[in-house]
Amino acid sequence: MPSDSGFDHGLLSPATAGHDALVCDAAVVDALVTAEVALVRALAAERAVDDGVAERIGSALGWQGEQIGCRDHGVDPRELALAAVGGGNPVIPLVGRLRSAVDEADAPWIHRGATSQDILDTALMVVSRRATAQVLTDLIAAADSLRTLAVEHADDVAAARTLTQHAVPTTTGARIGAWERGIRRSIDRLGDVRDTLPAQLGGAAGTLASFADEFGADLARRLPAAFAGQLGLSAPAAPWHTERWPVTELGDVLVQVLDALGKLAGDVATLSRTEIGELAEGSGGGSSAMPQKQNPAHSVLIRSAAVRAPQLGATVHLASTLAVDERPDGAWHAEWPTLRELLRIALGAAAHSRDLATGLRVDRGAAARNLDLTGGLIVSERLRRALVPLIGAERFAELVAAGDPTTLADRLRALPEVAVLDLDDLLDAGRYTGLASEFADPDSTEPKP
Amino acid sequence: MPSDSGFDHGLLSPATAGHDALVCDAAVVDALVTAEVALVRALAAERAVDDGVAERIGSALGWQGEQIGCRDHGVDPRELALAAVGGGNPVIPLVGRLRSAVDEADAPWIHRGATSQDILDTALMVVSRRATAQVLTDLIAAADSLRTLAVEHADDVAAARTLTQHAVPTTTGARIGAWERGIRRSIDRLGDVRDTLPAQLGGAAGTLASFADEFGADLARRLPAAFAGQLGLSAPAAPWHTERWPVTELGDVLVQVLDALGKLAGDVATLSRTEIGELAEGSGGGSSAMPQKQNPAHSVLIRSAAVRAPQLGATVHLASTLAVDERPDGAWHAEWPTLRELLRIALGAAAHSRDLATGLRVDRGAAARNLDLTGGLIVSERLRRALVPLIGAERFAELVAAGDPTTLADRLRALPEVAVLDLDDLLDAGRYTGLASEFADPDSTEPKP
Amino acid sequence: MPSDSGFDHGLLSPATAGHDALVCDAAVVDALVTAEVALVRALAAERAVDDGVAERIGSALGWQGEQIGCRDHGVDPRELALAAVGGGNPVIPLVGRLRSAVDEADAPWIHRGATSQDILDTALMVVSRRATAQVLTDLIAAADSLRTLAVEHADDVAAARTLTQHAVPTTTGARIGAWERGIRRSIDRLGDVRDTLPAQLGGAAGTLASFADEFGADLARRLPAAFAGQLGLSAPAAPWHTERWPVTELGDVLVQVLDALGKLAGDVATLSRTEIGELAEGSGGGSSAMPQKQNPAHSVLIRSAAVRAPQLGATVHLASTLAVDERPDGAWHAEWPTLRELLRIALGAAAHSRDLATGLRVDRGAAARNLDLTGGLIVSERLRRALVPLIGAERFAELVAAGDPTTLADRLRALPEVAVLDLDDLLDAGRYTGLASEFADPDSTEPKP
Amino acid sequence: MPSDSGFDHGLLSPATAGHDALVCDAAVVDALVTAEVALVRALAAERAVDDGVAERIGSALGWQGEQIGCRDHGVDPRELALAAVGGGNPVIPLVGRLRSAVDEADAPWIHRGATSQDILDTALMVVSRRATAQVLTDLIAAADSLRTLAVEHADDVAAARTLTQHAVPTTTGARIGAWERGIRRSIDRLGDVRDTLPAQLGGAAGTLASFADEFGADLARRLPAAFAGQLGLSAPAAPWHTERWPVTELGDVLVQVLDALGKLAGDVATLSRTEIGELAEGSGGGSSAMPQKQNPAHSVLIRSAAVRAPQLGATVHLASTLAVDERPDGAWHAEWPTLRELLRIALGAAAHSRDLATGLRVDRGAAARNLDLTGGLIVSERLRRALVPLIGAERFAELVAAGDPTTLADRLRALPEVAVLDLDDLLDAGRYTGLASEFADPDSTEPKP
Repeated sequence: MPSDSGFDHGLLSPATAGHDALVCDAAVVDALVTAEVALVRALAAERAVDDGVAERIGSALGWQGEQIGCRDHGVDPRELALAAVGGGNPVIPLVGRLRSAVDEADAPWIHRGATSQDILDTALMVVSRRATAQVLTDLIAAADSLRTLAVEHADDVAAARTLTQHAVPTTTGARIGAWERGIRRSIDRLGDVRDTLPAQLGGAAGTLASFADEFGADLARRLPAAFAGQLGLSAPAAPWHTERWPVTELGDVLVQVLDALGKLAGDVATLSRTEIGELAEGSGGGSSAMPQKQNPAHSVLIRSAAVRAPQLGATVHLASTLAVDERPDGAWHAEWPTLRELLRIALGAAAHSRDLATGLRVDRGAAARNLDLTGGLIVSERLRRALVPLIGAERFAELVAAGDPTTLADRLRALPEVAVLDLDDLLDAGRYTGLASEFADPDSTEPKP
Repeated sequence: MPSDSGFDHGLLSPATAGHDALVCDAAVVDALVTAEVALVRALAAERAVDDGVAERIGSALGWQGEQIGCRDHGVDPRELALAAVGGGNPVIPLVGRLRSAVDEADAPWIHRGATSQDILDTALMVVSRRATAQVLTDLIAAADSLRTLAVEHADDVAAARTLTQHAVPTTTGARIGAWERGIRRSIDRLGDVRDTLPAQLGGAAGTLASFADEFGADLARRLPAAFAGQLGLSAPAAPWHTERWPVTELGDVLVQVLDALGKLAGDVATLSRTEIGELAEGSGGGSSAMPQKQNPAHSVLIRSAAVRAPQLGATVHLASTLAVDERPDGAWHAEWPTLRELLRIALGAAAHSRDLATGLRVDRGAAARNLDLTGGLIVSERLRRALVPLIGAERFAELVAAGDPTTLADRLRALPEVAVLDLDDLLDAGRYTGLASEFADPDSTEPKP
Repeated sequence: MPSDSGFDHGLLSPATAGHDALVCDAAVVDALVTAEVALVRALAAERAVDDGVAERIGSALGWQGEQIGCRDHGVDPRELALAAVGGGNPVIPLVGRLRSAVDEADAPWIHRGATSQDILDTALMVVSRRATAQVLTDLIAAADSLRTLAVEHADDVAAARTLTQHAVPTTTGARIGAWERGIRRSIDRLGDVRDTLPAQLGGAAGTLASFADEFGADLARRLPAAFAGQLGLSAPAAPWHTERWPVTELGDVLVQVLDALGKLAGDVATLSRTEIGELAEGSGGGSSAMPQKQNPAHSVLIRSAAVRAPQLGATVHLASTLAVDERPDGAWHAEWPTLRELLRIALGAAAHSRDLATGLRVDRGAAARNLDLTGGLIVSERLRRALVPLIGAERFAELVAAGDPTTLADRLRALPEVAVLDLDDLLDAGRYTGLASEFADPDSTEPKP
Repeated sequence: MPSDSGFDHGLLSPATAGHDALVCDAAVVDALVTAEVALVRALAAERAVDDGVAERIGSALGWQGEQIGCRDHGVDPRELALAAVGGGNPVIPLVGRLRSAVDEADAPWIHRGATSQDILDTALMVVSRRATAQVLTDLIAAADSLRTLAVEHADDVAAARTLTQHAVPTTTGARIGAWERGIRRSIDRLGDVRDTLPAQLGGAAGTLASFADEFGADLARRLPAAFAGQLGLSAPAAPWHTERWPVTELGDVLVQVLDALGKLAGDVATLSRTEIGELAEGSGGGSSAMPQKQNPAHSVLIRSAAVRAPQLGATVHLASTLAVDERPDGAWHAEWPTLRELLRIALGAAAHSRDLATGLRVDRGAAARNLDLTGGLIVSERLRRALVPLIGAERFAELVAAGDPTTLADRLRALPEVAVLDLDDLLDAGRYTGLASEFADPDSTEPKP
């Protein structure tokens, strides 16, 4: 058996390796302990227990304030993971460990009135809130870099491609601007969802009966908000033990983040192709066999995450719709590793996208060279409108379909009917980019003609 | 070959059969024609073409106002579907058909400056807007029925179940209230998304070059909003030909609708089990073999839709992240049938949920009978808090674990230490429902004690 | 409401439009009627009923032999689909219609002892058997065309690409041969699965009690095989009402078919890029905006199907694992439209792949031109082995990394240490294709040196 | 930052915690090193290098024979994982580490001619082969336990349920036999797939050019089989760098394993419901709040894995179909963590199912009690056949639909027309179980009457 048996360090997921400190098991244990301490603190804040109890418990379990929560509490993640198997969740063994770690007289106040799901759901929201802060930071940095690039290349004419074929001209900046818009949309949505991540507190089956029974209904009504307040989470409108939208809405927006990054990465990988070469990552990845290789490694890793995300999102939804009873027979458990993996790949992909955007190099020469590949065919939409009235649709279609595109201009000039047109202008791809420059640089005060 | 070869009427999808008029091929063709006419009308509104052209075209193609769009335009869906194969989308053959249906002089104004994606994306948004209106109507009716039921049964004590086992008491109304909250959340979100469904207008590659070239940049800037206005859609911030959040956000919220309905259906199916019997659908489904069967048919059909939805949602996200270039090589095409199927199952499931909620029957006797099944064990959480201080944790655990639960009360009464307690109250499940009644009936002015 | 309200003709699925006759609702109704008639015929074959009954029923319901089954039975698919909603499946209303269509005295023999699931599962296997025959025919034709092409281009040197970058040389034939191998693997597997598609017969809950009760246990033991024999299906080892491997194994192999076709289509789309141009579809798809476009339409449509298939496959598996009880509360119903859609997209994609493979054009000049793009860098793996012993790893790395690849040959020739090498041979990409030609043409008797 | 930052021990996946030693990062590193050593050994076996080189390298890197491969090679998984990010895969940094660990003169023989994908794909097959051996062992143990149970309860009459409602009688043994058959099918298929897991060897782009160039084409032809032989893997028919059926076929069968286990677990969870109680897990899971809870913890954990598996399977297929070029830009990387997670949940679920099956307790009394719940309605299918000829279909339907089922027998006896029937026999559920006992116990020599 391997010496560090059972550990996963991301070896098979280079898209996320090194970006999982915020969601790894140790981080989850911290959040679980934090949730337990926050509950005692909330009870103290609501005068259900002496402040001294909460303070002693917090102190024993490493409470370091609402921003940080608990650290250095001595609970070993691996050992707890194995102990979790019997009862199906880690909170059951955790409570025993935490009670042993505090004064015997204070021990009964740990997990008082709560159920495992209260602590686990809340801890996952705490982990999600922290992880998404980092995701947002990296996404904003990526978007800012793209913004700069979009403005810089707002007027660089390049071939737009549809169904893999040259279509009409656009600009490199417009393309980059579209990536940025997609990422900004996901930033806005992730920010919204992050601000509403709720704490969970419902007791054994979502009625808060244990709290109402011991402390009265008034306190039971106030306690969820007080608990949330200790953790920087939103107060829940009601227990959501079987209404799982907090998990699915978070899952959806994480997938949306990956959608936007995957689109960016797919375009960079495509435009980095040896034959296209309009873009290159700042530092390419190497190869174990081929010394010349400069691979678009960030793009590849982002894409590897992006094609996984939607199916992880689907699993979270399945868990939601299968959440029968007041706690379901498997669906809830399926959420945990899946939501965590979504957070992990969002963290990894956002970090890689930041590096990708920062280092991205644009090769204007390659863009120009590609634009010329089809002669004037890339503006054939424009030519059609100008020429059909002069030579008819049939002859125009023949002109476009016939022969070597590089001779199109010459063939056009040879047509006597066309003499009235400014062919140089008509064939200039840069004169047929529409609002591309504005889409690249919406703040430009001088719109292109 | 069958006589109506190739038609799908929902025979294999009873969850949606009869609920697809708003999304069937004929409805899509109507929306495609509507989008083409709306474009000419927008050009006329912006004075790029005479009003007369737009009026003649609208008249020839059955325009009936912004609410209804086009009808009776004579385009045959089956024939168009087959013609669509060659070019990969139905707009290419549609344009030819529409141009033939109008005055020859007006024909060039159809599809002027647009690309297939402009029309198809916009038409799918038109279809989505109409279909989601019906989904919302049915969801609201379902939620309203549940609201009435929740209030009616706010105080009906029933067993809450976790991991399939009786846990603590709740009330039937609290359970129904949770279903309603999940549905209301999906209603709110669907309403938000519906209000932002944007038209799409970008020309061949999202630069609006064809419009800018012919009508000037100013008009090109205004045209998308004018186009959207003709259709009751939102004006797009920019062309979204490869930023597919309008599709994925709609997909996500449709899945969320199904999540909420699937949770409802799963609970109704479970609680309708022969052994449980706390709920029954108003009119059960029959059987081809067993004359006595009263199946929870609505629940079954809703569930069949709910377990399909997440994977359809995943496909829409995959299409989004794979949307390379200015129009991708397959991903865009994968969206269409998938988004339509999501709309279809949302329509079907919402309608079934409306019927389910309207007809749902609650059997108070069964709930009470089930509650008694475990003697007082269902309040053992409460008993523990009361008894452990008197008899210690160990003896309490023995009491709970031992023997026949139906004798628990007697065994408790036999304990001398327990004489100080009001055992009748302690064992009364109705005294341990916490805030359940309030969660069932938040507007009740008299909170339960 | 549209005039043909609720019909789906494939308008939004050009990948499948026109390829659904074998799986459309009318085909399913034929198969359902066929299964009902086959059951009576099996009872007659087992002497449980007079042959005359079976003959009269078969005649009334259009029985045309085991190969064809029933046709022209007069059951309207749309009407049946709507009638199916109440009980949740189409067999319940079908039985009534069929009994009305035969002699009153014979009517009780229709659906005798069977349950809806027996008929529906069996009918879907009948449909699957017919549809997969067509899929196999098209796949074999595609593979045969690829075989011819692979041999023809076995020695055409071309750039192999990894992570989008030129890697080392290969041959066009080797690439085509790999596509063919993937397709052949899926053909073999689909053939195997097709040969084992079983009939289903278990009665109300899989015990065959109704048959055993009426006709005796011996007949009940033999009846499933007799029933299967009437339909050309395999005899089931046991009823599979809740062991759904016949459905999931079929689903898996259909996804595998799409995997292989999607790989083909993805490569064709990539290699058809304007900048690459090594391949072109025989007849490109057009555009509604851009007159010059020659889109790889078959590839695009195949890819649109291929990215949908895996999630449909996932749904079939979910239905399988959620198949609780002796017939589940929704999971079974989720299989039907999903399996049918998998069959439909396999039919469409296989047909498109046949056309794609038949018409595929290879541009040897483009392959050669691309190969030259990186000078000799494409054989740098080979150069490294030859040069590092002469000039050391460090200088070799500098040579590869430095400057313009088109001057690499000249720079190499300028190195005195290299004079001992045959640089022309070393730099010849065609001398570094390994076994590529053999992989393209395994039957070639003269292996390349 | 947590002290063991970035480690995943399965804390959020109790279904797999403790069952990942065979697939954890350390196990993967072992397999990667093993593959590198096996390549040198294969070259030596083919006389391309001296045996001494292979022996020294094997010795330095902990080679312990073909069954075990390499151990104690000193490569740190965490450190390697982080180093893997730059180039996108762990083989690039691994090669450097291994070369440093052997004699300088031998170092060039490590990774000779290979590419990263050769080593990584092969290592994943090695890991898969070992992990699936354990999965098979546990599945067989589970199936054997179920076999014993099925025979033991072959004649225990119990209610079969369809769409959650009592349908007709079956036997507990028949139900258990169906679980076993599903598991046996997955065992057979997994065994088949396991036996064909191939090694991968193709060099930089699948042509084996590096080997052919250095050692000649003959050796290049033989080397893949020699390499596979060193590892106990199958010899590949051709390099499968972009034909990913070895991965998808393995993925499919792992999902099939989970399907079968999920069906088992779903039924056990359902039949363990407090109101049903026909089954109980040997040792129930506890609760952090409710002292009386005996949760079906194995079932819950198995189900949590089973609802995740299909979407993981979908991702593997997507990776396969998106495998463009000679190595794709992200799809290949998406396979690794996904295949590993499928192996991990199969290991966990198989182990839990073994424990579940071994400890499963059947409550005959509960089954009998439930059977009585509906009076004789559970045999109404049988009653219909007997009574309709005597009293007509209409009166029979009234009898079944009317009133309290527990009085059905009395109401029947009160009918004068029914006097000719043996009502005791007709109403005896045990007389209407068909072949259920045989399905439970196919080897029974004395079939039930």
